[in-house]
Parts: sequence; structure tokens; C-alpha cells
Amino acid sequence: MMNPANLVEVWRGPFLESIHQGHAVICDATGGIVAAWGDPEAVILPRSSAKMLQALPLVESGAADAAGLSQAHLALACASHQGAPGHTDVVSAWLAELGLGDSDLRCGPEAPRDREIKHDMIRAGGSPCQWHNNCSGKHAGFLTLTQHLKAGPEYVDPDHPVQTRVLEAFEAVTETKSPGFGIDGCSAPNFGTTLHGLARAMAFFAAADPESSHARDGAAGRLTQAMIAHPWLVAGEGRACTELMRATSEPVAIKTGAEGVFVAILPKQRLGVALKIADGATRASECAMAALLVRLGVLPADHPAVQRRMNAPIPNRRGMLTGHIRPVAGLAG
Amino acid sequence: MMNPANLVEVWRGPFLESIHQGHAVICDATGGIVAAWGDPEAVILPRSSAKMLQALPLVESGAADAAGLSQAHLALACASHQGAPGHTDVVSAWLAELGLGDSDLRCGPEAPRDREIKHDMIRAGGSPCQWHNNCSGKHAGFLTLTQHLKAGPEYVDPDHPVQTRVLEAFEAVTETKSPGFGIDGCSAPNFGTTLHGLARAMAFFAAADPESSHARDGAAGRLTQAMIAHPWLVAGEGRACTELMRATSEPVAIKTGAEGVFVAILPKQRLGVALKIADGATRASECAMAALLVRLGVLPADHPAVQRRMNAPIPNRRGMLTGHIRPVAGLAG
Repeated sequence: MMNPANLVEVWRGPFLESIHQGHAVICDATGGIVAAWGDPEAVILPRSSAKMLQALPLVESGAADAAGLSQAHLALACASHQGAPGHTDVVSAWLAELGLGDSDLRCGPEAPRDREIKHDMIRAGGSPCQWHNNCSGKHAGFLTLTQHLKAGPEYVDPDHPVQTRVLEAFEAVTETKSPGFGIDGCSAPNFGTTLHGLARAMAFFAAADPESSHARDGAAGRLTQAMIAHPWLVAGEGRACTELMRATSEPVAIKTGAEGVFVAILPKQRLGVALKIADGATRASECAMAALLVRLGVLPADHPAVQRRMNAPIPNRRGMLTGHIRPVAGLAG
Repeated sequence: MMNPANLVEVWRGPFLESIHQGHAVICDATGGIVAAWGDPEAVILPRSSAKMLQALPLVESGAADAAGLSQAHLALACASHQGAPGHTDVVSAWLAELGLGDSDLRCGPEAPRDREIKHDMIRAGGSPCQWHNNCSGKHAGFLTLTQHLKAGPEYVDPDHPVQTRVLEAFEAVTETKSPGFGIDGCSAPNFGTTLHGLARAMAFFAAADPESSHARDGAAGRLTQAMIAHPWLVAGEGRACTELMRATSEPVAIKTGAEGVFVAILPKQRLGVALKIADGATRASECAMAALLVRLGVLPADHPAVQRRMNAPIPNRRGMLTGHIRPVAGLAG
């Protein structure tokens, strides 16, 4: 196994205070590696960066169309949203359409990630519902497929028909046999793969045709289109995925995952990108993804949203600038 | 420069999901290295792990005694407290005794780290004062010394007499010339040193005699005693420093710092410990420090507070156990 590469530096004044290592792969639609850092064959859990893979069975089975899901629903199925009303209202209405409610979800409650919304909830003495969970769109998608399959309610059970279909699609588009799964923060199984496998899957999505008569190809194309059409639904105001998707010079789908995972789908270039920060830090995965997308020419380096990630200032409690988070020299090209 | 060593593993199900590397040194009172991981000569910013060093001039100058400071005040001067009323009431009364108020602090406002207190503040529509800042005790100490020296109000200026005295004491007890400073989260200069230098300083504190007629030796001994006597003031309920200090089988002072730094002072064994997680993660610095103190025989491995750090469960949003944070094999002995 190859060592991870230095990817992101944290500077405070003249000191390199901390450093983040990781693995990154840029893959083309043939599955070939265009560029790599660290070990392309490192096995990872893709966490929420796999949501578009987990949504494939929902679309390719016909369940999404049978339930009349819109592009906004598909974007939310791939989202780690921040629990703003614009997210949770869609999810709760979606559940109601299915004749279901919050208690049918299996993701667990999570405080909204949006600071103002969370504070409003605290002030009102409220507590979060399961639909506030950042994964609630994915779970509403799982429930839609569950109904379509006439399967039982415990849809996060690894043996449930929803999850066996997810695994089949996951292994097909990563072109690797998954070595197993961990239980995700939202209780769904999260299947392992290699960085190369995850980047290959993203390249498959990049090359997929939403009009294709091949169900999986069409599903991948439609999910990519949905994410690109709804950057706010995929995350929310101020979040890296949303801000970077809004800043690209051509349509790109970008998705974060816990523990330092980040992926991107570049349809025009038919490229997929996957990276994992070895220590799991999100500040570093955001920085490294911004740098790689600058390198690929789809993010302008001087865009404020890009600078906020690729050259993130570290202010202190009096607002003084103490340092910066930066990609290693050469990563952004 | 030697590479950092693997110190802490993050497991999810059967997968080693993330890994934290770092440097650690155990030093004796002669300055000799008893054990080391990674590079003992790695240069770091010790951040809040240097607070007892930053408090040396306050005590050795006679300023603390002239102002009638108690052991509780000295503990708070070394603290990263969580802004509970038991912390902020002492700091605000201390400032009042000096004829000063919140606006004389230069640490900036920070929301209390205690969740319930923070939520109470949000519910009441309040906003944090500077004395809620986790560093406000250190700053009250700086202000006490400022008055004693009849110096100007901008005590965080690196050229201010308070900071030049801090630097002199810092270089003396680390036995290294500091290569410079970064600006800390609280706006004070944070002087750099090596891991070895920081561990040597901790061993100096461990061997110091609070009754000594030598001013610096006596100051180090009194500050160590103050931290050991007031584990709650040094951090707060549920915090690693407080819980681990309460769990030791002999008196030990333990102090965290931002960006993955942690130190310990073991007076009975006359040992100092310093560690830095290369990527800056606190979850890893807490785990590694708990493991090293188990290794040194001063923390019982089976104590619940030790297990919460050394074998920290990773629950998900439904309370399911998804994995653990653990030291690498052999670190805990």
C-alpha cells in the first residue's frame, strides 16, 4: 500500500501548524486514472459521497417515476442538506405523498446544520425531527423504493431488498467487489470501495446520458442533472457543495462525505474525481477538492467561494487573521 | 526531520476509516527523552498547552501575591474553561478587584463551550462576553501582571512587557530559543518550540517545588498544584482535562491545546509529556494522551472517563454503535 500524500497545509503566521494527508484520483470514462495522489487502491468508506450511487436503484427501478418524483426530489435523494425549511418541507411533503411520516424514517434526528435555524429551534424549545437529518432525502428515496418493491419497513437492514439493490449498483459502477460495509451516521450500510473505484463511479456518472434507454445509464445521468440543477438542495447556504457548484464555469456535481471524503462529476470532460483525507478532516477535503477543480479548469481560483475553501482564512475571536488553510504547492496546477 | 508516527485509529465496523499521525515525547527532569514517537524535534505551536508557561511571570514576579490571587485564580490562569458560571463569575470578580471590566480583555468574545449554558444564552437572546472566552483566566492573569508592571493596556502586543516576560520564561523552561510566534485564537502571541522543548518544560513543572525560594521554580510548582487542586476550573464538566485529572491514581496536571496538542505534568514521577497530532485533531490528541497516561501507570485503563477517550465509541444519530477511536497497538503499553 502506498502512503498518503501531503495535500493540505494549515499555516499560522510563519508556522506550518498542521498538515493533512490523503489520497485522490481523477478518472476518465474508460476507468483509466488521469492523475492520482497517494494510493489509488486505498480502501475507503465513501460515506455521503456515495449518495448518488445509493439513489441509482430508486431511479433505474422506475420507482421514482411511478411516485412522480421531480428533479428536486432526486437532488434531495443525493443531498446532505442542512435542514432548512426549503429542504425539510420538501421531504415532509414527499413522505406525506407516500402516506408516511417522520416515524417511518430510520435516519435518526439531527439538529439542523444551519446556525440560524438551529438557534430558532433552541429558542422555540423545539427538538429536531428525523426529517431534519441531513440524509432525510436519501431516506425518503429508500422509502419510495421500499414501497415500489412492496418490501418491509426496515429498509436500512443490510439484507433488505433496497440495500441489496444498492450494493449491486454500487459494485457495478465502481467496478469493484465491495469488501464490506460500515454503518453510517444515518444507520444505512455504507459500502466500502477503493478511491479508484469511487472515482470510476463518478466518471460513469459524468459520461451517463440522462436520455439513455439503458436504465442504469439513464438513472446516473438524471441524478447528475438533478444535483447540477439544484445546488442549494444538495447542501444549503454557505456550504461548500452548494457554493462550489454555483461557482463552476461549466456544470459540475460536487458532493462531500463525512471523514474527509469528497467527489466530483464533470460531465463535459467526462471525468470523475474522488478524494479522501486520511485523518478525516472536512476543512482539508473542501480545500483539496477546490484545488483539484481549479486544476481541472472548472473553478476560477479567484472566485470568493473558491478562495474561502482553497485559501481559507483562519480568523480569531477578535476577527484578526491568524493564518490560512492551503493546498500543497502544485495541487491546484 | 523524522516522519510523524501513527498514533490513533478511527474504526467503523471492520474498516480502519481514518488514521491520525503525530509526535509525542516523554521527558524526565534532566531533559532526557524517556520515550518518543515521531520526531521529538518537530517544531510546533503549543497553543493552550502553554498556558502554565504563560502564567509563570504572573507568579514569579510577585504580581499574583500582590493582587491576593488564590489557587483558584492560578488554576484559571492555566485554564481553557468552558464559560460556565463557576468560571466566568470568578473571572469577572477578579477583573472587578483590579478595577477593570470585560472591555479591558483582549481575548475576544466566545460562546460558552458548555452546551446547556450556550443554549440558555441563545434562549435568553444573549451574546457572549469576552469573559466567556475559554482563555479569559489567562487574560485576567495578563492584566494582573500588566498592572503590577504599570504597563500599557495592549498586553497582547508581542512587544508588551507582559509578553516579553512570557517569552523569556518560555525559552528558559523549554531550554530552546523560540523560532517565533503565531497569533493565537485569543490574540496573544503563541511562541513556537519543539515537542522535546515542550516536554522538557512539563518535566520542569513536574520537578518544581512550590516552596522553593527560587522564584521560577516556586511559580511552576504553585501553578502545577493549582491545576491539580482544581480540575474543574481548568476545563469543565465532561471535558477531557477535567475528567482525566479526576481519574488519575496520583496527582497529574493535564492540559489540552488547539490543533491536536496535549501535555501532562507528573510530579510524583518527575516526568513531562507533550504530544501533537500532525493534522490538528482533538479527538486524536485526547485518545493519545489517555493512552500515554495509561502507559505511565497513572490512569486506570478501565475507568469510564479513560475509556471515553482511549476507546471512544462513535454512536450514530439513532444511538447505534458504528465504531471506535483507538490508540495504535502498543501506545498504551
